[in-house]
Amino acid sequence: MSKGLPKRSENYSEWYNEIVKRADLAENSSVRGCMVIKPYGFAIWEKMQRALDDMFKATGHQNAYFPLFVPKSFLEKEEEHAEGFAKECAVVTHYRLKANPDGKGLVVDPNAKLEEELIVRPTSETVIWNTYRNWIQSWRDLPILINQWANVVRWEMRTRIFLRTAEFLWQEGHTAHATREEAIAETKQMLDVYATFAQEWMALPVVKGAKTPSERFAGAEDTLCIEALMQDGKALQAGTSHFLGQNFAKSFDVQFTNKEGALEYAWATSWGVSTRLMGALIMAHSDDAGLVLPPKLAPIQVVIVPIYKGEEELVQITAKVEPLIKELKAKGVSVKYDDDDKQRSGWKFAEYELKGVPVRLAIGMRDLAAGTVEIARRDEMTKESRTLEGVADHILQLLDEIQANIFKRALSFRDSNTHVVDTWDDFKIRIEEGGFLSAHWDGTAETEDAIKEETKATIRCIPFDSDKLEGVCVYSGKPSHGRVLFARAY
Amino acid sequence: MSKGLPKRSENYSEWYNEIVKRADLAENSSVRGCMVIKPYGFAIWEKMQRALDDMFKATGHQNAYFPLFVPKSFLEKEEEHAEGFAKECAVVTHYRLKANPDGKGLVVDPNAKLEEELIVRPTSETVIWNTYRNWIQSWRDLPILINQWANVVRWEMRTRIFLRTAEFLWQEGHTAHATREEAIAETKQMLDVYATFAQEWMALPVVKGAKTPSERFAGAEDTLCIEALMQDGKALQAGTSHFLGQNFAKSFDVQFTNKEGALEYAWATSWGVSTRLMGALIMAHSDDAGLVLPPKLAPIQVVIVPIYKGEEELVQITAKVEPLIKELKAKGVSVKYDDDDKQRSGWKFAEYELKGVPVRLAIGMRDLAAGTVEIARRDEMTKESRTLEGVADHILQLLDEIQANIFKRALSFRDSNTHVVDTWDDFKIRIEEGGFLSAHWDGTAETEDAIKEETKATIRCIPFDSDKLEGVCVYSGKPSHGRVLFARAY
Repeated sequence: MSKGLPKRSENYSEWYNEIVKRADLAENSSVRGCMVIKPYGFAIWEKMQRALDDMFKATGHQNAYFPLFVPKSFLEKEEEHAEGFAKECAVVTHYRLKANPDGKGLVVDPNAKLEEELIVRPTSETVIWNTYRNWIQSWRDLPILINQWANVVRWEMRTRIFLRTAEFLWQEGHTAHATREEAIAETKQMLDVYATFAQEWMALPVVKGAKTPSERFAGAEDTLCIEALMQDGKALQAGTSHFLGQNFAKSFDVQFTNKEGALEYAWATSWGVSTRLMGALIMAHSDDAGLVLPPKLAPIQVVIVPIYKGEEELVQITAKVEPLIKELKAKGVSVKYDDDDKQRSGWKFAEYELKGVPVRLAIGMRDLAAGTVEIARRDEMTKESRTLEGVADHILQLLDEIQANIFKRALSFRDSNTHVVDTWDDFKIRIEEGGFLSAHWDGTAETEDAIKEETKATIRCIPFDSDKLEGVCVYSGKPSHGRVLFARAY
Repeated sequence: MSKGLPKRSENYSEWYNEIVKRADLAENSSVRGCMVIKPYGFAIWEKMQRALDDMFKATGHQNAYFPLFVPKSFLEKEEEHAEGFAKECAVVTHYRLKANPDGKGLVVDPNAKLEEELIVRPTSETVIWNTYRNWIQSWRDLPILINQWANVVRWEMRTRIFLRTAEFLWQEGHTAHATREEAIAETKQMLDVYATFAQEWMALPVVKGAKTPSERFAGAEDTLCIEALMQDGKALQAGTSHFLGQNFAKSFDVQFTNKEGALEYAWATSWGVSTRLMGALIMAHSDDAGLVLPPKLAPIQVVIVPIYKGEEELVQITAKVEPLIKELKAKGVSVKYDDDDKQRSGWKFAEYELKGVPVRLAIGMRDLAAGTVEIARRDEMTKESRTLEGVADHILQLLDEIQANIFKRALSFRDSNTHVVDTWDDFKIRIEEGGFLSAHWDGTAETEDAIKEETKATIRCIPFDSDKLEGVCVYSGKPSHGRVLFARAY
């Protein structure tokens, strides 16, 4: 199956598309820009959801659900927000179809025109803050810590499966607070949750930082983000957490009586990650043989393939393997025993490599005689033979080791592709090679735009851990108060 | 808080609306017909989802995700299906707004008209079968057993929170099979899953049966359903499972090579339950004091309220209670310890009754001295005092008992409100009293329509367990081959 998978070095973009397709993760649908997430891909997304949801609940958040539709008048209320989303939204104008009076099929019924158009939510700040108005009267009603898992639609002109699709799945947290400080603390806390999830579950090293004003979410006072580096040297924004100030509270008139008895506007945050993370996961770790999955997110962590001829051998192998399967399952490992006789073991090996199953066990008659099993790890593509005795514990350890190794590998890739750059000539050369460039910037949107124009590089973030040493802007030569991170990005 | 909750006997409909509101389950949004599901309500829905999802997976199904939008031409392909859904659907006609050239705000950009209108999915048979065409070539690709959790939109003119809303949340299973028999078996299996879920989790007794042709899903050859009885004597359809025959396979040209090498159309089923179940849950069990929740679906199963004056008493009570909380949590019970000093215990008691928390413990200084605790059960509104010793195990047992008792109560209500009716006069009197009427029907749509016209009663189902004894139709006097179940319904 993996035969013919394009090489990363030859055509990264094609390689990505083919992995998505051949590993049965997703496909483009007949509906423009919308994808079908296939069961194997969705199983990975479900694991992500479960882990994130647990982390949200552990930090005091609850789930709720708000309407799919945003009345046009809601979108208009926050000016910057409207400007950010009006240009690419699906607009519902009618509520009925009728038989075509001129022939076959259905047509929109002109008598069923909505008085006010509805937008399919591109994000839910407006609908949610319109609701919060009725929920918030006093400081006692605060904070409100709510998350929703939902689908959203942004009418992107150029789509790319998982990375940029017209419809995507995500979670959006929307919180309301009594003080500015508390809202800012929440914004940071949720960025930390994302960073922890990316690193511990996705094995994806990320840089935490703040966006520049021109890269902020439409309607935010501050946008924090986590940025990751893909194997082609392009950056990918993996999650954002916004401090919205009092913008939405003012637009939707959400005031509360504070402890001193005075009326005050509530403070807001919002934060989200989406099915885009699937794209990041694929592009960060996979190789020319296919998907490489961190064990914590792998739908199948261990596959066991019997090597046999005829029913009798299979019966013997199965008898030997069953207690191991039971033991692994009892230890919380998801195991697949593939005794399907329609495919040869060579085909199966390639297939599970393509699908990124972290550990593969193979066991044949010779192993049976010797009491051994062959263990292959997907990340390093190495094999070893081990005695069956104690193999379950070894596998548990191996899964941890693979999880750590994938992270380490991605981190080392990122480190060796992050460069400190001090001259414009160096910048222009380095940016062609890909990776993060750490450079001084004069803090103006003009310079940011000019650099983007000339090199297609954007400021991914102003990293939190950047030393705030003075310097001169790599482009303008003007004074700079610290380095920022540039890259070309998805 | 529960003061002023309308009585069921006086205004059932108002009682329902007020419970939904005061128990913080959901509210109507500013978007016509769309609801906001609040955290407490959503937590119940999440428990339902988890239980159902586990049952779907245990029967071999996998989750996936398909697009929100249905191109108009897809809807047109299956004629009956189109007719069923075209009259009430949200139609996306444009993909952009622009600044209003004549003044303030945003207007639809006429230059951004879609070539083909998109319907917000009212259900996904068409989109999914259009996708299955590419997934199914051979009998080896079958069966396909997929479920999706999604939001859907049906532009209902008269909406009712949870029961009938323009947007609702649901799951829709869509399976493809190589044979008619296998698809029929799947249809039945999933109806059994729903019945088991309703009875074991929701404590809701249901009648399993088949819909009459005129009540079938648009595009189905057979629709199976579970029907439940609410406390006002109206029936509620709680879940449906459809055998779709080859209708969608033919409309979307989904053919496969069977084992004999011949081309054949695939056989389909679809099945779904929705947030409507929340309405059923509320209306089946709750009372004039508020919600009554079956323990298995209660977000908080046990609430512990300390009765104290001053910090010192609270410290003593808390110290005594903490090991119990720990023990209960370790046993998988969700416990809330409410030591909030802003509310009095009387207020709290009423509040948790309103929210349907199955078990309430109260512990004061006298209990502390005596080593006892007061245990109140929500279903029967009874109290007893018990020694703290061994109370955790008692509570576990009590939760099981409450679960069983709520079911028993609902079953006994249904039984005493199910009547065998043999004359039309009796039918007309009985139907005014509510409940299920088991009566002979001549099998014609004409009679079904006439009965509905005269009494507003519909045939809820042809029960599987109906004895197929011959008789005469309660309305027409013509021959009948068995009794069916009539009721007025939600």
